[in-house]
Amino acid sequence: MKACLLAIGDEIISGITTDTNSGFLAQLLREVGVEVTGVLTVPDDEAAIATALRRATKDAELVISTGGLGPTADDLTTTCVAAFAGLPLDLHEPSLAQIAARFRDRGLEMPPNNRKQALLPRGCTLIPNPEGTAPGFICEVASTPARFTASLPGVPREMKRMAEETLLPWIARRSGAGVIRSTVFSTVGLSESKLDQLLVGAVQPDEARLSFRAAFPRLQTRVTVSGDSADEVEERLRRLEGTIRARLGDHLYATGDVGLEETVGELLRANRLTLSVAESCTGGLIGHRITDVAGSSEYFLNGVVAYSNEAKQRLLGVSSATIEEHGAVSEQTVLEMARGVRKIQGSSLGLSTSGIAGPGGGTPEKPVGTLCVGIAWEGGEWSRRFDLGKGSRTWIKQMSAQVALDALRRRVLALTDATTK
Amino acid sequence: MKACLLAIGDEIISGITTDTNSGFLAQLLREVGVEVTGVLTVPDDEAAIATALRRATKDAELVISTGGLGPTADDLTTTCVAAFAGLPLDLHEPSLAQIAARFRDRGLEMPPNNRKQALLPRGCTLIPNPEGTAPGFICEVASTPARFTASLPGVPREMKRMAEETLLPWIARRSGAGVIRSTVFSTVGLSESKLDQLLVGAVQPDEARLSFRAAFPRLQTRVTVSGDSADEVEERLRRLEGTIRARLGDHLYATGDVGLEETVGELLRANRLTLSVAESCTGGLIGHRITDVAGSSEYFLNGVVAYSNEAKQRLLGVSSATIEEHGAVSEQTVLEMARGVRKIQGSSLGLSTSGIAGPGGGTPEKPVGTLCVGIAWEGGEWSRRFDLGKGSRTWIKQMSAQVALDALRRRVLALTDATTK
Repeated sequence: MKACLLAIGDEIISGITTDTNSGFLAQLLREVGVEVTGVLTVPDDEAAIATALRRATKDAELVISTGGLGPTADDLTTTCVAAFAGLPLDLHEPSLAQIAARFRDRGLEMPPNNRKQALLPRGCTLIPNPEGTAPGFICEVASTPARFTASLPGVPREMKRMAEETLLPWIARRSGAGVIRSTVFSTVGLSESKLDQLLVGAVQPDEARLSFRAAFPRLQTRVTVSGDSADEVEERLRRLEGTIRARLGDHLYATGDVGLEETVGELLRANRLTLSVAESCTGGLIGHRITDVAGSSEYFLNGVVAYSNEAKQRLLGVSSATIEEHGAVSEQTVLEMARGVRKIQGSSLGLSTSGIAGPGGGTPEKPVGTLCVGIAWEGGEWSRRFDLGKGSRTWIKQMSAQVALDALRRRVLALTDATTK
Repeated sequence: MKACLLAIGDEIISGITTDTNSGFLAQLLREVGVEVTGVLTVPDDEAAIATALRRATKDAELVISTGGLGPTADDLTTTCVAAFAGLPLDLHEPSLAQIAARFRDRGLEMPPNNRKQALLPRGCTLIPNPEGTAPGFICEVASTPARFTASLPGVPREMKRMAEETLLPWIARRSGAGVIRSTVFSTVGLSESKLDQLLVGAVQPDEARLSFRAAFPRLQTRVTVSGDSADEVEERLRRLEGTIRARLGDHLYATGDVGLEETVGELLRANRLTLSVAESCTGGLIGHRITDVAGSSEYFLNGVVAYSNEAKQRLLGVSSATIEEHGAVSEQTVLEMARGVRKIQGSSLGLSTSGIAGPGGGTPEKPVGTLCVGIAWEGGEWSRRFDLGKGSRTWIKQMSAQVALDALRRRVLALTDATTK
């Protein structure tokens, strides 16, 4: 089967929003053996959408659109698809009830224009949206050979679940593709080319497909196996998993699409450890990531964002002599920060960061991108200085949080491993 | 003038690389009054590129391609464009000399296949590449009315300079097209449909174009005006800006694509105020957002992530009686948190959050989505309880940070306004 992707929206065509949906869908489709013929990006304009639908169905049996399903006047996808397929729009009562319920649950009244989102082409297959108001739908276009359109919303969180939970099984059923299984490996501390090098020759082209996905700071490898029987496919996947695990070594922190904060949280919980965090250059990002995990209050006790030197001294007990002698960005300072934050509630572990996120503040000895990480625990401590290299302030903050969380993961693994033995 | 963008490359169509070039070009083109009709993304495949060139020139006078100018066998752009324009390829000696020089400068010998990059369609206009080996070129396609193709490499750093330094001046010379101007309005505290309702009828379809962009938690409205003369366009835009401002009221926090943390930061800096933040349910997100702004160390002193009740007491001095009597999620508690965090360094303002991000922890009286925000300053304080409604943990955290930053913005505006009067 061939598919053509259609990204709809003024905000994409104008460069205001970068379309990441098409890349996500392309990877997903590839895994089930669907070839993507192209991506057409068009503005919120009826004529442009109509032309794109015509061209896309010329190239491919399935056209998947993202965007333009919202409640506002510039959301035109449903109308255009219905017109193209020659289908009238019907009010889909269950969808309307669900949209109304979403507003009611939030104690809000449904604005009248959201009713529009329940108008669907007659006879379409519904793609339920568990994350938002706009349902998606699959339409058959009257033509020989048969052509289909699938319309998904543009919000990535909504689109992803709908594609994985409803659209993909629909495609698998239609295309008669055999059994497909895949495993995702989440890694840290590797560049994409380093990862590529590590895996050269690990998988033969005829036994599986490898694909990489970098959604900074996440870097993932997916291995996809297909074949006729579930047994055969699963056995081959298990064998390849072993090979890939061995190659990735301790860069592998989880299988599945998992954030480093989830792995670290799981390690802390499993070992009944508690954590306090003292952040300078990361500004609260580590605390934010750790508390993004449901149930993190079990192990995360508190954090201090010690942005000023005075805060480092008052809140964490860093000595002014240390800051004067070694600077706020030094292994000595982060060690005192880690010790100090651990003391507040007697947490098992204290994690600290201090660095230069830029754009200002760099010196020849400590350029922008310098990061110091400290970890303190009962009876021990650890620190290291990293040079993250050049990057925007946002990039350096993100990278710093990732490096610090990875340092904590490795430390907890080493400590609990030592205890177990 | 209208332009259609063509992004060429297997790595884009497969989702491995996200195409950021088209967005960059679209914004650049808009600034010189060129309308982008669409973006076509195609694989490294001769037939697909040929079809895309045909379609693109149907829609627009100018087709700008990125990618496919490299030295390897899968780089097909030059061949395809030359075939489409009906032009033979000639070896362009100055380009060859320059490519060879680039290698020589690095102490390398030029690989034979790089010679291919100096083969250019006869009679084309060169787009020099100061950052890499592949020159770009502009071709006239023999047709009525005239059509042009401009081909740029896919490496963003190279593409950007070539577009800005050579392509854009060429377009400006050729087009003499109308004038386009736009303004972006950044708002807070409105849903997309509420925003839409507020703006109904504010702009007539023949005088301007309204578009919305929701990149949660950011919600923006862009008004775009086009016409024959800069004076006329700017006058109309100014008038519409007035109308839109009046409709948006205090939901408007900035014009331009600006985060709420930037507006708050600017308000603090302009009024020489300093800030400390005590976060519970937001877990560090407010500190993270505030410190994403370069120069935030001028006004942001410190933060405390008081996740446990014990942390609220030890780090912020919240009384155990208050927590027992009113609960950790209460206006009383956030007020004590705000006062406490402000005291640490005597900041001008203390901002605090406490809420239930879920999925667990909700009660009938305080369901998931309950948020309390507190603000303390010299001689005053403010607090409020919000019901954010249902949503994922991540959504509630993001929304809580947005609501808290907006409360701070309104408070600072009220305080400084009062001072000024």
